[in-house]
Amino acid sequence: MKQKLEIRNQHRCFDGIQGFYQHNSSCAGLPMRFSVFEPPQAQQNPVPTIFFLAGLTCTEETFMIKAGAQRYAAEYGLMLVTMDTSPRETGIPGETDDWDFGAGAGFYLDATEKPWSNHYLMESYVTEELREIIVNYFPADNNRIGISGHSMGGHGALTLALRHPDKFRSVSAFAPVSAPTQCPWGQKAFTHYLGTNRHHWRRHDATALIEDGYRTSDILVDQGVEDKFISEQLRPEQLEQICHKSRQKLTLRYHSGYDHSYYFISTFIDDHLKHHRDILLG
Amino acid sequence: MKQKLEIRNQHRCFDGIQGFYQHNSSCAGLPMRFSVFEPPQAQQNPVPTIFFLAGLTCTEETFMIKAGAQRYAAEYGLMLVTMDTSPRETGIPGETDDWDFGAGAGFYLDATEKPWSNHYLMESYVTEELREIIVNYFPADNNRIGISGHSMGGHGALTLALRHPDKFRSVSAFAPVSAPTQCPWGQKAFTHYLGTNRHHWRRHDATALIEDGYRTSDILVDQGVEDKFISEQLRPEQLEQICHKSRQKLTLRYHSGYDHSYYFISTFIDDHLKHHRDILLG
Repeated sequence: MKQKLEIRNQHRCFDGIQGFYQHNSSCAGLPMRFSVFEPPQAQQNPVPTIFFLAGLTCTEETFMIKAGAQRYAAEYGLMLVTMDTSPRETGIPGETDDWDFGAGAGFYLDATEKPWSNHYLMESYVTEELREIIVNYFPADNNRIGISGHSMGGHGALTLALRHPDKFRSVSAFAPVSAPTQCPWGQKAFTHYLGTNRHHWRRHDATALIEDGYRTSDILVDQGVEDKFISEQLRPEQLEQICHKSRQKLTLRYHSGYDHSYYFISTFIDDHLKHHRDILLG
Repeated sequence: MKQKLEIRNQHRCFDGIQGFYQHNSSCAGLPMRFSVFEPPQAQQNPVPTIFFLAGLTCTEETFMIKAGAQRYAAEYGLMLVTMDTSPRETGIPGETDDWDFGAGAGFYLDATEKPWSNHYLMESYVTEELREIIVNYFPADNNRIGISGHSMGGHGALTLALRHPDKFRSVSAFAPVSAPTQCPWGQKAFTHYLGTNRHHWRRHDATALIEDGYRTSDILVDQGVEDKFISEQLRPEQLEQICHKSRQKLTLRYHSGYDHSYYFISTFIDDHLKHHRDILLG
């Protein structure tokens, strides 16, 4: 597979390359944007690579601008990959009406309901189309790719790692939506994207997947105690319970005083990149 | 002086406090916004404090979001202060017409020409009003305050440090506008803010101030070689020449491949905070 990649811009950063790209996505049927940080080590050899999935309303830029991750990625020799959180300008009526559904809220799943299923195939986009681009066009080590994310993107990281353990060998999350079938954000999105048959929802819910027997490598989750979404939307205790019951290894850390913002993520991103490095190189 | 400060929001970050504030500014005659990062050490004692002045189009948020500085400030025990780059919504006609003049482009000077002089008093704002707020309301060590900045803010840091060495004991800059009286950005802004008599411009030009005998502590400047503004607007060679001639100590580092963005700033902010720490605590 060879595609035309448009380089939107590139910046030198910690002796690596921070690049922003666009391509015609076959999954979306439209141009999609993504971003890659290549650490200096990637000039010599393919390097372990972490996909970071952002949360509601974010774009491929958010993590690269706000997380302060490049400093650590350059030290550890990790490539970082981010992508937009949904297709954009699909022409679907109402696409931009809600901040928690539609544009900016693709939930990292393949929609099966019209009209969303015409464009909103974010699971295939991340696990297949974008992953192939990264392996083919960038110095990524195909056998050492991990996945992480924040909030809706934490949900994405967990569910994609559980369902595609061959593609993502390490996983972590910040304040993930742990049981989307049981919270308002997830129920709203899944109803529109997947229809009303809740049986189809379970494969996009990390807690349900683990209950159904799916497993992944050791999970690291960080959660701020002052996060205003914790009890209604995020529900880390449900992830903790099912992991304990199912013997899925999980390190869940609660941090007093921290909220849902990138100021929280920036504080602990170092630990996450170390977690991925240790598993991918272990 | 006691003022009413509105806390817009606060976030825990690297065990410190990242806060965003608003107050009724007597200099601006309007509300002004600023931001403070208090490192964990500030819970015990007053700490050395660095004012960071942002560039054209930026706000009090830009540096705090993009520079990744809190990680180092928390390690070194430094407080960080940023402020908006101009008054906003003054009602002056044309205020938002240009990106390099008016709103977002206060140039850290006190305008003397009507109508700008009614609101645009950014030098007094930074050196007096905001500095007093920081010392009175936050755990800043009044005798250990430094100043840094980027582009237009690098110009601000250099000129304010040269003219107020008692208030800012350490100074550094990223890609500063080194000789604004001789570049298009500076000439445009100074004509509107200060009038056409160029004699009045010299006290807002770092190169001219050094030529006129002003001195400050050792200056650290980082400059990207791929910075598209370098030759027309920034002119680091003029700063270098006058510092050499005038025996003003300057460390000017050129970095191949780096541009004018915060990806450049984030790469070298650690060195700047160490520079300030070493001088302020030396």
